[in-house]
Amino acid sequence: MFIGLSEAADFLKNCRDAVIITHQSPDGDCIGAAFALKDILGYFGIRSRIVCCDEFPSRYDFMTNTGCGEDFEPQTVISVDIADNRLMGSLKEVYGDKVQLCIDHHISNTGYAEMTLLDGKASATCELIWFLAREMGAELSEHCAACIYTGIATDTGCFKYDCTTADCHMIAADIIENYNIGFAKINRNMFDVKSVGRIKMECRVLELMEYYLDGKLTIISVTADIMEQMGVDGSDLEGCASLPLQVEGVEVGIMIKEREPGVYKISMRSANDVNVSEICRILGGGGHAKAAGCLLEGSLGEVKKRLIEAVGKAV
Amino acid sequence: MFIGLSEAADFLKNCRDAVIITHQSPDGDCIGAAFALKDILGYFGIRSRIVCCDEFPSRYDFMTNTGCGEDFEPQTVISVDIADNRLMGSLKEVYGDKVQLCIDHHISNTGYAEMTLLDGKASATCELIWFLAREMGAELSEHCAACIYTGIATDTGCFKYDCTTADCHMIAADIIENYNIGFAKINRNMFDVKSVGRIKMECRVLELMEYYLDGKLTIISVTADIMEQMGVDGSDLEGCASLPLQVEGVEVGIMIKEREPGVYKISMRSANDVNVSEICRILGGGGHAKAAGCLLEGSLGEVKKRLIEAVGKAV
Repeated sequence: MFIGLSEAADFLKNCRDAVIITHQSPDGDCIGAAFALKDILGYFGIRSRIVCCDEFPSRYDFMTNTGCGEDFEPQTVISVDIADNRLMGSLKEVYGDKVQLCIDHHISNTGYAEMTLLDGKASATCELIWFLAREMGAELSEHCAACIYTGIATDTGCFKYDCTTADCHMIAADIIENYNIGFAKINRNMFDVKSVGRIKMECRVLELMEYYLDGKLTIISVTADIMEQMGVDGSDLEGCASLPLQVEGVEVGIMIKEREPGVYKISMRSANDVNVSEICRILGGGGHAKAAGCLLEGSLGEVKKRLIEAVGKAV
Repeated sequence: MFIGLSEAADFLKNCRDAVIITHQSPDGDCIGAAFALKDILGYFGIRSRIVCCDEFPSRYDFMTNTGCGEDFEPQTVISVDIADNRLMGSLKEVYGDKVQLCIDHHISNTGYAEMTLLDGKASATCELIWFLAREMGAELSEHCAACIYTGIATDTGCFKYDCTTADCHMIAADIIENYNIGFAKINRNMFDVKSVGRIKMECRVLELMEYYLDGKLTIISVTADIMEQMGVDGSDLEGCASLPLQVEGVEVGIMIKEREPGVYKISMRSANDVNVSEICRILGGGGHAKAAGCLLEGSLGEVKKRLIEAVGKAV
């Protein structure tokens, strides 16, 4: 059942001993939402505990340093930013069909919870947490404000992407005006800082860039040999697929990673209006309009040729 | 004379045949402010012309494409985002002592104009233009809203830096809510896109990085030889000084550029709390807390040693 803000606020104000679940591979938004919600419940004297099947990355320490909460027998189960209970990972078995309230902004939410507060137009679950806090009449702590700001900033690329809403900016204005959260330092750590190894790898990857279709398409092919030379595996290369989009004039960036001999994992990114989900669907894959993928078989040359043809029809 | 918003609005509504001056090496904020102000004056039937001693870079075409305006004998002279009339470059001779209204956000404004609307707390002159438009009762065109958004976004690093105010976000919320300016595309072009040559150069520069003081200090030395090898000159390297700040743990990043044998131009950048203006002042230079510079003489080894010592005392 989908519910509105006031119903969700009522439920939260009257719950007790709550477990708050975040999704696997936790990011700024689900961590921000969980730790902000924990603060808000705490404001009303309601104790809660945050659980996740994976560890929280250390760069989010400034949010998680208030602790996940003490151990107790939960009376309430809440999920944040989880569109599908399979995203709970190993915790699905424990909580998958026990969620009473899900707070989420993914339009694809499967409705697995008893009650779902969903706003598919919100850029981040943290937006919803801010509105909930206001509806509940909670005063935000500085930590809570920092969590909400971080969730919104990370899900919008620091207010850069299409998904940024007027509400994001309105909430950021409120937080900057009223709380001393050190947002510039948060942004630096979320967006600008990389390890030396990462910087070196990105430079290596950029050297591999090839240009097609009058520079509208770039392809980076990373074979097993190259990965071995660079001392990285496929997962290290995550996030590199969007690197070519920083090149002037590029509409589509493709990263080809050799998975096994003759089998290639394709990551496709769109800079502007080309729908790469559609291109990948035709090639047997899928994804979002600006980030999609597929698996292709053949020689590297054949794979490239198919990709150039497919993109050529779309740009 | 420093004046307030309502006086400036009155002046603007009652002026005619205005010249709007932007500063040399024009950036997103002065271009945005000038073209937004031209639209606003146009709303009241007042014609204006934009002048600059330098050309507007092509990446700002979406703002400048409304044109700089027809030729006429000016009755009013307005400057935007110009803290000191020397920043008019070659236009100082023509307009330097004739400015009736200066609209600016630099606390260092020299007060060269007859009337100055100054808000040193504003992140961008475009913030002031937005407040002026509201005070004047002008309806913004989409183009005008795009100009104001761009000025604010470029001066704040897309809402990332310390200088971002609650007003920036409030104005961005208003613009996103009410105007279809395609802000994500603007942000992509302002912040993400680089030329292939630039990307290659940045990678080369990053390879030159040396680490000192437990990784808190990085130094990149670009000698005349290296510049020749890379096929660039000192001005091409502009903006590279902040590249080392993306490295985890770095507090101060220094770029040393050989100006002539035995003379080195030092650019110093601070990631967080180290005041590099103070360090450069001691070394005979100056600047801002997070971006400063100086000129040092000696061998490259001596220059590095002095820099490491000076930074070592501050971190």
